Amino acid sequence: MIVVMKRGATPEQIEHMIQRVERLGLRAHPIYGAERTVIAAVGEKRDEFRQSLESGPGVAEVVPILAPYKVASREVCNEPTVVRTGSLTVGNSHIGVMAGPCSVEDEDQMIATARAVKAAGATALRGGAFKPRTSPYSFQGLKEDGLKLLALARAETGLAIVTEVVASEDLPIVSRYADVLQIGARNMQNYRLLEAVGAEGKPVLLKRGPSATLDELLLAAEYVLNAGNPNVMLCERGIRTFEAHTRYTLPLASVPWLHERTHLPVVVDPSHGTGHASLVAPMGAAAIAAGADGLIVEVHPDPESALSDGYQSLDLEQFEQMMILCRRVAEAVGRTIVAP
Amino acid sequence: MIVVMKRGATPEQIEHMIQRVERLGLRAHPIYGAERTVIAAVGEKRDEFRQSLESGPGVAEVVPILAPYKVASREVCNEPTVVRTGSLTVGNSHIGVMAGPCSVEDEDQMIATARAVKAAGATALRGGAFKPRTSPYSFQGLKEDGLKLLALARAETGLAIVTEVVASEDLPIVSRYADVLQIGARNMQNYRLLEAVGAEGKPVLLKRGPSATLDELLLAAEYVLNAGNPNVMLCERGIRTFEAHTRYTLPLASVPWLHERTHLPVVVDPSHGTGHASLVAPMGAAAIAAGADGLIVEVHPDPESALSDGYQSLDLEQFEQMMILCRRVAEAVGRTIVAP
Amino acid sequence: MIVVMKRGATPEQIEHMIQRVERLGLRAHPIYGAERTVIAAVGEKRDEFRQSLESGPGVAEVVPILAPYKVASREVCNEPTVVRTGSLTVGNSHIGVMAGPCSVEDEDQMIATARAVKAAGATALRGGAFKPRTSPYSFQGLKEDGLKLLALARAETGLAIVTEVVASEDLPIVSRYADVLQIGARNMQNYRLLEAVGAEGKPVLLKRGPSATLDELLLAAEYVLNAGNPNVMLCERGIRTFEAHTRYTLPLASVPWLHERTHLPVVVDPSHGTGHASLVAPMGAAAIAAGADGLIVEVHPDPESALSDGYQSLDLEQFEQMMILCRRVAEAVGRTIVAP
Amino acid sequence: MIVVMKRGATPEQIEHMIQRVERLGLRAHPIYGAERTVIAAVGEKRDEFRQSLESGPGVAEVVPILAPYKVASREVCNEPTVVRTGSLTVGNSHIGVMAGPCSVEDEDQMIATARAVKAAGATALRGGAFKPRTSPYSFQGLKEDGLKLLALARAETGLAIVTEVVASEDLPIVSRYADVLQIGARNMQNYRLLEAVGAEGKPVLLKRGPSATLDELLLAAEYVLNAGNPNVMLCERGIRTFEAHTRYTLPLASVPWLHERTHLPVVVDPSHGTGHASLVAPMGAAAIAAGADGLIVEVHPDPESALSDGYQSLDLEQFEQMMILCRRVAEAVGRTIVAP
Repeated sequence: MIVVMKRGATPEQIEHMIQRVERLGLRAHPIYGAERTVIAAVGEKRDEFRQSLESGPGVAEVVPILAPYKVASREVCNEPTVVRTGSLTVGNSHIGVMAGPCSVEDEDQMIATARAVKAAGATALRGGAFKPRTSPYSFQGLKEDGLKLLALARAETGLAIVTEVVASEDLPIVSRYADVLQIGARNMQNYRLLEAVGAEGKPVLLKRGPSATLDELLLAAEYVLNAGNPNVMLCERGIRTFEAHTRYTLPLASVPWLHERTHLPVVVDPSHGTGHASLVAPMGAAAIAAGADGLIVEVHPDPESALSDGYQSLDLEQFEQMMILCRRVAEAVGRTIVAP
Repeated sequence: MIVVMKRGATPEQIEHMIQRVERLGLRAHPIYGAERTVIAAVGEKRDEFRQSLESGPGVAEVVPILAPYKVASREVCNEPTVVRTGSLTVGNSHIGVMAGPCSVEDEDQMIATARAVKAAGATALRGGAFKPRTSPYSFQGLKEDGLKLLALARAETGLAIVTEVVASEDLPIVSRYADVLQIGARNMQNYRLLEAVGAEGKPVLLKRGPSATLDELLLAAEYVLNAGNPNVMLCERGIRTFEAHTRYTLPLASVPWLHERTHLPVVVDPSHGTGHASLVAPMGAAAIAAGADGLIVEVHPDPESALSDGYQSLDLEQFEQMMILCRRVAEAVGRTIVAP
Repeated sequence: MIVVMKRGATPEQIEHMIQRVERLGLRAHPIYGAERTVIAAVGEKRDEFRQSLESGPGVAEVVPILAPYKVASREVCNEPTVVRTGSLTVGNSHIGVMAGPCSVEDEDQMIATARAVKAAGATALRGGAFKPRTSPYSFQGLKEDGLKLLALARAETGLAIVTEVVASEDLPIVSRYADVLQIGARNMQNYRLLEAVGAEGKPVLLKRGPSATLDELLLAAEYVLNAGNPNVMLCERGIRTFEAHTRYTLPLASVPWLHERTHLPVVVDPSHGTGHASLVAPMGAAAIAAGADGLIVEVHPDPESALSDGYQSLDLEQFEQMMILCRRVAEAVGRTIVAP
Repeated sequence: MIVVMKRGATPEQIEHMIQRVERLGLRAHPIYGAERTVIAAVGEKRDEFRQSLESGPGVAEVVPILAPYKVASREVCNEPTVVRTGSLTVGNSHIGVMAGPCSVEDEDQMIATARAVKAAGATALRGGAFKPRTSPYSFQGLKEDGLKLLALARAETGLAIVTEVVASEDLPIVSRYADVLQIGARNMQNYRLLEAVGAEGKPVLLKRGPSATLDELLLAAEYVLNAGNPNVMLCERGIRTFEAHTRYTLPLASVPWLHERTHLPVVVDPSHGTGHASLVAPMGAAAIAAGADGLIVEVHPDPESALSDGYQSLDLEQFEQMMILCRRVAEAVGRTIVAP
C-alpha cells in the first residue's frame, strides 16, 4: 500500500502514520516529495489494513498495490483451469455452450429443447427450476419438479445440466440433480451461499452482479475457492449503465482483462447481456472473438409463450444459425466448441 | 400496457397481437397512426404479461403504464407509514437517527458509543454482528457475542437496536436480540430472506442495492409487505456510478420521488453513501432538507482503530456536531428528530 | 405519443389534455383503463411536443412512440450507406481500418507508421493535429504542421487521411488536408461544428460522447445529414460507467442495435474503448464479429515515447498481429477488410 | 507518481523504468516488496508524464499522487473566491439564486418572470437566447432578439443576466448583453470556447458535463482561469447514471467534496438535476444544506406552454414557495441568500 499524506500534513502526523504502518507488521518507506509525502508500506497483506489507515490523521488516501484476491489469481496459479463435467468442457481452448430455457416449464418443452440444442451443437442444457424474480407476483419456478424434468432431459440427451441454486437451504436438493450449480447475479455477494457451494464441490457458474467490479467478482469466486472447490467458471452477463436500449450493457473487454489476471474460465451470457433476441447471436460471436471460454444462451421452442424472458430467448432455428456463426468465429480464433 | 408495433408490421401481425392481448384477458384498443400502430391493452395486471408480449411478431416494444408494485404504493394506501419500536420513531414528520459502529467490536466500544450517541440525540443504536464482507479474508463479525453486546448497550441506554441479518438461517438468533432487522444492500434481492423477515414481523430496514432501480427497491419491499409485515423502512445508501471520488453516489432526489409514490418511510445512509467522514454531516443535513424520515450513521469512538469502515465513521465529537446541524435543518423544514 | 394520466386525474384534467393534444394538430384517442386513463396522440411529429405535454395538469408521463431522428433512420432509407474516399471504403460488407498515432509528432514517426500500417492492411491513416486535451498543460498538437505531415504520409502511401476538427473556425484549414473529418467524443453535441461539417461535405467520422445515448448519437448525425452531407460514419468508442479497470466501457451491442435502426455505417474504436494496449486486438476482433463496418486503432512505432495515449497504442508488430486476427474473423462472418 | 511494476517484472525492466523516470527530470525511489516492486517518482509535474510511463515494459500501472489542476486548487489559494456582478454575489457565505425560463420567448414572459423572481428573492435572471438542442428539429432560441429582451428585463428589475454562450463566434454579441456567461454541460470540454471566455473576462458559470469527473470539471475551470479570468463558478447539474426516474442523477456530495479541494464557488441546478418540477424545491433546499453557494432554477409563468423544459420548470407561485424554504434552510446552516 501507498499511504498518501495531505499537502499540509505535519511531521507529527507523518511520524504517527509511519508508526501505525509498522505496528501492522509492515515496513514503512517514507518518501518526501516537493509537495507531498507518501509512505510506502511493504510486506503488505493486501487491503486488510487499508481501511484503518485511511482514517489516520493527515492522510489523503491509501492506494492499494496488490490485487485483493489470491487463489483466483494468475500470480498464484498460471495454468488455466478447465472445468469438466459430463458433456461439458470449459476452459483453455475448449468452448462450452450451455443452452436452454430461462424457466423449466414442462416435459415437452424440455425434451424438445434439449434435443434441438444438442443437435445444434450445445454442450450442456440450462434451465431454471428455482427462479429469483424481481416481483413477488411473477412465476417462481417449478422447484423440484423442474429439477426432475432437467434430469429427464439429461437422461434423454446426455447433456450436462446447469441450473441455479438461490439459497443454502435448497442446495441438497439442487445438487442431487444438477451438474453445474449456477449462482445468479443477485446472489453474487450472498457469501453464505458461496461458502455452501464451495463446500459442496460441484462445478459452479458464478454470474457477475450488475454493479459488481471485476475485483468483487474475483473475491466472490475466492469465497468458493477458499471453501475448497476449484471448479469455478466466471460469467459476464452485463452491467447496469445509463444505456437503456439494451437490458444490461455487455462489456466484453472483461473477458481478456480477466484472462490476464485469473486462471478461471470466463463464460459470457449474451441473452441477459442484451435483453433482445436479435442481438444475442452477434454478441455471442463477439464474445468468442474476444476469447470467451463459454456461452450461456436462452433458447425456447416458442419464445412468445415462454413463462419468463421470452423477449431475449432464441427459437430453435435462431439458435442453430447462431451456432453455425459461433463455430466459424471460434475456428478463426483458434478455438473449438467441444462436441459433447 | 401499450404494445408498439414496428413500422413495417403486417395486418396479420397486428391481428395476431390483438388476439394475444385478448387471450390474456385484457381489452385491446388498436390505434392506427401515420407511421405505426400501437395496441393499448386495458385491464392490465401490471407487467406480468409484458415479457411474453414483447417477443410477439412485429412488436417493437411494450411500454408499461402501471407501476409494478401494489401494497407499497400510495395508490393503495395514501397514509404515511410510521414505524415505531422502543426509542425509535420513523415516518411522517418524525425523524429517527440510528447511529453506531459498523461492526460490534467489544463491550467498551459499544457502551461508550451508545451513551455518546444517545447524549447527542440519536434515537437508535446500530451495529453489525453478522458482517457480509467483500473479501473472505476480512473480519466477519462477532456473531451472537456481538448481538449480546448490543442488548447490553440497549439495557444501558434504552436505545432500540438496529442490526443486519444476512441469511434466513440466522433469523431466529438475530431477531431474539434486534429491534430492527436490517437487510443489507447486497441482500436486497435475496428473496428468500425477504420472505423470512416478512414472516417474522419485526420492523425491517431495507437497503437499496447499489444498482437497483427504485421500482426494484419497491418490489423488494413488496416481498416483505406481501408476507404480512407492514413495518418496512426503505433506505437510500447510494448507487454505483462512474464517480470515483465518493464510494457510492448518493442520489437524494430518490427521497422526494419515493415519497410521491409510496407511503413507506425513507431513511438515508450518508456514511456508505459517501464513504468519507468529512462528507457525512453535510449529506446528512441535505438528506433531511430533502425530506428524509431518518438517518443511519456510522459512529466510532476511535475511527482509526475500527475493524471496518473507519474511513467513513464519525468520531463522537463529529457526530455531536452533525446532530446540532441536523436538528436545525429539521426544524427549518418543519420536522423533528424525536427524542428517545 | 402516449399521454399517461395520473391515477387520480379528474375528468377536467383529462379533457384539458385531450384539447391540448388536438390544439397541437394531433388526433387524441383517450383510453379509459381500470386504474388509469391514457391518451394516444396520433399523427405525432416525433418528440417536439412531448416536453410541453409533460407539464400538463394530472399528467404522470408522456411516452414517445416514434424515434426522434428521421434522415438517419432505416425507416426512411433502408439501403446501407457506404462511405468511400480514396483508399477507404466503409459500409455494407466492406470493413475499413483506420490506423495511426494519437498525435502527429514528426515526419519520421508519420512516414514509418503510415508505411507499416498500410503493409499490415490498414485502409486509412489516422493522426491528430488539433488535439482537445483534458488539461491545459498537456501537448495540444502540431496544428497545421501536423496536417502537412499527414498529407506527406498520404502522398507517400496513398492512404486516406482521418483527422479531428475541434472548432468551426479550424474547418477551412483542416478540410484542405483531410479526407475524413473526425468529430471527437467531446464535440458530439457541439451543434455549430456539426452544422459546419455538414455544410462542408467531406465524409465525417462522428464519435459517440461517453454519456450519449444512441438516440442522441443519431440526432447528432441528423445535424450533419440535415445540413446536406450524407457521408456520416458513426463511431462507438466506449461509454462512462462504474467500471474502472478499462478507461471506458465498450458496449459492442450498439453495433447490431444501430444496424437495425440506421443505414449509416458503424465504426468501433477499441483503443479508447479499452485504454489498454493488451485489450485492443481482442476487442477489435470482437467488434468485427459483432458486425462493425470499420475500426479505428491507435498505432505508434514506439508507444513508450508517444506524446499522448501511449498506454493504449499498439506498436507496429502488435498491429500486424491484430490485422491477421481481424481478417480471419471478418472472413468467418462473411465480410472483407478492403485492400486500399 | 508511483510506477507499479508487474509481479514478474525483470531486473532489466525495473532498471529501464528507473532510468526513464530520471530522464523525465524526476527522482526515482524504487521499493522492493515481497511480491512487487514499485518506483516512486518524486518532484513530479502532475500527470504530464503518467501516460508515457504506463506503456513501459513490465509496468502494471502508474498511480498519480498530485491533483492534475493547479490554479483552481485550495493548495494554491485557500481563500474562497467570491463572484460579484451587479445584483449577484456568489461564494463564501453568500448564496446567489439565478432564476428564469429555459428559453427567452417574448417580452411579456421575460418581464413577468423577472419581476416575480425578484420579488420572491432571486438575485439574478437566467434565460437562454442561444439554445443547444439535442434535435435539429427543436426550437433553437431567439438569438440576439433574446439577448435584447434579457437586457430589457435587467433594465426593468436590476437583476444581473445569466445566459449561455454556445460558440466562440457568438461571444462578442453575447458578452455585450450578459453579466454572467454560462458554459453549458455539452460544452464543458469545448476548450476553444473555454479559452475564449477566459480571455473575455466576464464571470463564467461552468456546468459539469453529465459524464465528467470532478477532476475533469476542475481542469475545464483551469482552462478559463489559465486564460486570466478568475471569476469562475462551478455548477453541479447532475450526471448520467442508470437511474431513469430522474432526468439526471444529482450527486450533492460533490458540493462539500469540491469545497475541500477548490476555492471556486459551487452552484447547483436542481432543475436539470432532477427533470421534474416536483423534485426541484426539495433538492434546492438539500443543495443549500449541503453547502451550495448558489442555485440556478428554471421558472416560467406558464410551464405548460414553455417552448422548452416546461416539465422541469416551476411556476411563479412554486418558485416563491421554494424560496421561503431555501431561505430557512440557508439560515439554519449559517448562510444568507443575498438580497439584490
